[in-house]
Amino acid sequence: MSEIRVAVDAMGGDNAPAETVKGVVEAIAADKRVKVFLAGREPAIKEELKKYHYDAARLEIIHAEEIIETGEPPVMAIRTKRDSSIVKCMYMVKDGECDALVSAGSTGAILVGGQVIVGRIKGVERPPLAPIIPNMNGVSLLLDCGANVDAKPSQLVQFAKMGSIYMESVIGVKHPRVGLVNIGVEEEKGNALTKETYPLLKNCDGIHFIGNVEARDIPMGAADVLVCEAFAGNIVLKMLEGVSDALIGKIKAGMMSSLKSKIGALLVKPALKQTLKSFSTEEYGGAPLLGLNGLVVKTHGSSKAVEIRNSILQCIAFKEQNINEKMKEQIVP
Amino acid sequence: MSEIRVAVDAMGGDNAPAETVKGVVEAIAADKRVKVFLAGREPAIKEELKKYHYDAARLEIIHAEEIIETGEPPVMAIRTKRDSSIVKCMYMVKDGECDALVSAGSTGAILVGGQVIVGRIKGVERPPLAPIIPNMNGVSLLLDCGANVDAKPSQLVQFAKMGSIYMESVIGVKHPRVGLVNIGVEEEKGNALTKETYPLLKNCDGIHFIGNVEARDIPMGAADVLVCEAFAGNIVLKMLEGVSDALIGKIKAGMMSSLKSKIGALLVKPALKQTLKSFSTEEYGGAPLLGLNGLVVKTHGSSKAVEIRNSILQCIAFKEQNINEKMKEQIVP
Repeated sequence: MSEIRVAVDAMGGDNAPAETVKGVVEAIAADKRVKVFLAGREPAIKEELKKYHYDAARLEIIHAEEIIETGEPPVMAIRTKRDSSIVKCMYMVKDGECDALVSAGSTGAILVGGQVIVGRIKGVERPPLAPIIPNMNGVSLLLDCGANVDAKPSQLVQFAKMGSIYMESVIGVKHPRVGLVNIGVEEEKGNALTKETYPLLKNCDGIHFIGNVEARDIPMGAADVLVCEAFAGNIVLKMLEGVSDALIGKIKAGMMSSLKSKIGALLVKPALKQTLKSFSTEEYGGAPLLGLNGLVVKTHGSSKAVEIRNSILQCIAFKEQNINEKMKEQIVP
Repeated sequence: MSEIRVAVDAMGGDNAPAETVKGVVEAIAADKRVKVFLAGREPAIKEELKKYHYDAARLEIIHAEEIIETGEPPVMAIRTKRDSSIVKCMYMVKDGECDALVSAGSTGAILVGGQVIVGRIKGVERPPLAPIIPNMNGVSLLLDCGANVDAKPSQLVQFAKMGSIYMESVIGVKHPRVGLVNIGVEEEKGNALTKETYPLLKNCDGIHFIGNVEARDIPMGAADVLVCEAFAGNIVLKMLEGVSDALIGKIKAGMMSSLKSKIGALLVKPALKQTLKSFSTEEYGGAPLLGLNGLVVKTHGSSKAVEIRNSILQCIAFKEQNINEKMKEQIVP
């Protein structure tokens, strides 16, 4: 049984450090293989840790004085704030002290730091940010949702390869179906990028390409790996979150509109809560930034302890399945 | 009180001609200004009309033998099937016999026919397909959702102008807020297209530009007019439909999971039905194809009578408010 060393950014996200620390304590309690290096302001972290009993041998605090805020220009922040929790986590992965890092902090800083500090696997053109999204029957991996838009066809092919490996080895979906996000199912549909990418995916070895997938069929679970450039991916992800929130809000308001429906609401509540939990993006841990020399996981800015815990536990399969070795084999420069 | 003459494609859509004919009968009953020219196979239309009482002076059948199927290549279909219901409707608008046309048929054929037969207003670079979509507090106009992707910044500015006129004069939203669909709210965010378009919209007279809108905020009603190119617009629209369907399916299944929740479901059903109705894209009539010499309205392929009726009634405001005159003034070549 090998140890998994995870660097966790204690200061990133809206609920840091309280929820982050809670999630870390839960993760080391849940799996004996996990050792966490918790980076951030030591006094604040210690204050939170007082609330819990935990195995102190598997939780080390790495003091970092600075914090990178969400609004900061990421390139400048990564370059100048060397004593920030994010940068310290990045260096622990780069230097091989940690296998992975988890942060709920600035997406921009994580994307930049991942590329500049942790570094890309040789041959990877662009590391995609790949959130796991819920669908009617399970989950799909959506990539790219990062900050770099206007991808090239060859980059989308790499996304398909890396996404397939992740989906198969970490999430456990055998022969994951790869779909190209498009505005029609026919091969000739779409924009210049999808038209060029389609034949490349069709002729790509080692992946199970099923063709174009329309956005309408994404929530139905039409593919396990959804390939697109980041502008489109961002819209898919944000619409999923936005429509879910709006609709659930509407439904709750509707249920409160009469006495009769209020009574009904009390009766359906437990069943509904379970249902909606399975359709929440927060239940599935964070989004890996794939194709780096180590695993970098970005969780929601609004992460609660459950998401931090799940994101840390996600790192176990990533290491034990040798994901990066598999990616290196697939992405030959 | 002026008459509004609407050409209706009796044969387009999954539920034609039954639901189309029903919708037409409902529309002429709902408003005395409406006269409908129902194009399609006369025997089939007459068979359906037998079911209803209606004012025969305001419903004329225009026999068309051919039908353009959804899968047909649109350019070829429009060129060769001169005796099809869609082409006949298009010519009635072009020749001034009708003010508008409504069809649930092939989107491609409607987009091509609209441009080739009805023709663009002078100066309009590209006519956008502009569905009305529901949000938490009302509706928004989303344009472009058509088949022509990779739009230019100048085209997006025209979409903003035409969308503002439609939203103000047909839907009745005063000083509609125009948002650019983007992956961040800051001016410098996005892809090459949105970065170039932002300053043009900011400096555009006659519209109320409020900046970038993230997809997450679209269902919250962040803007009244949502401007984007068609690939992005298609994803927004299809995700809205797909997530709604998936989530409602999940919720229904959740409610049926125990006896307790089944009883609760019976009690909340009436309130919920009302709520969900306001969040259904079908409640708001069809999508206008803006910028043509006449009004062309595309309804869902799965349209029921209510959508056909609403789409026909939508044409009244379009004509009475002189929308096309206003667009001509705004879009100076």
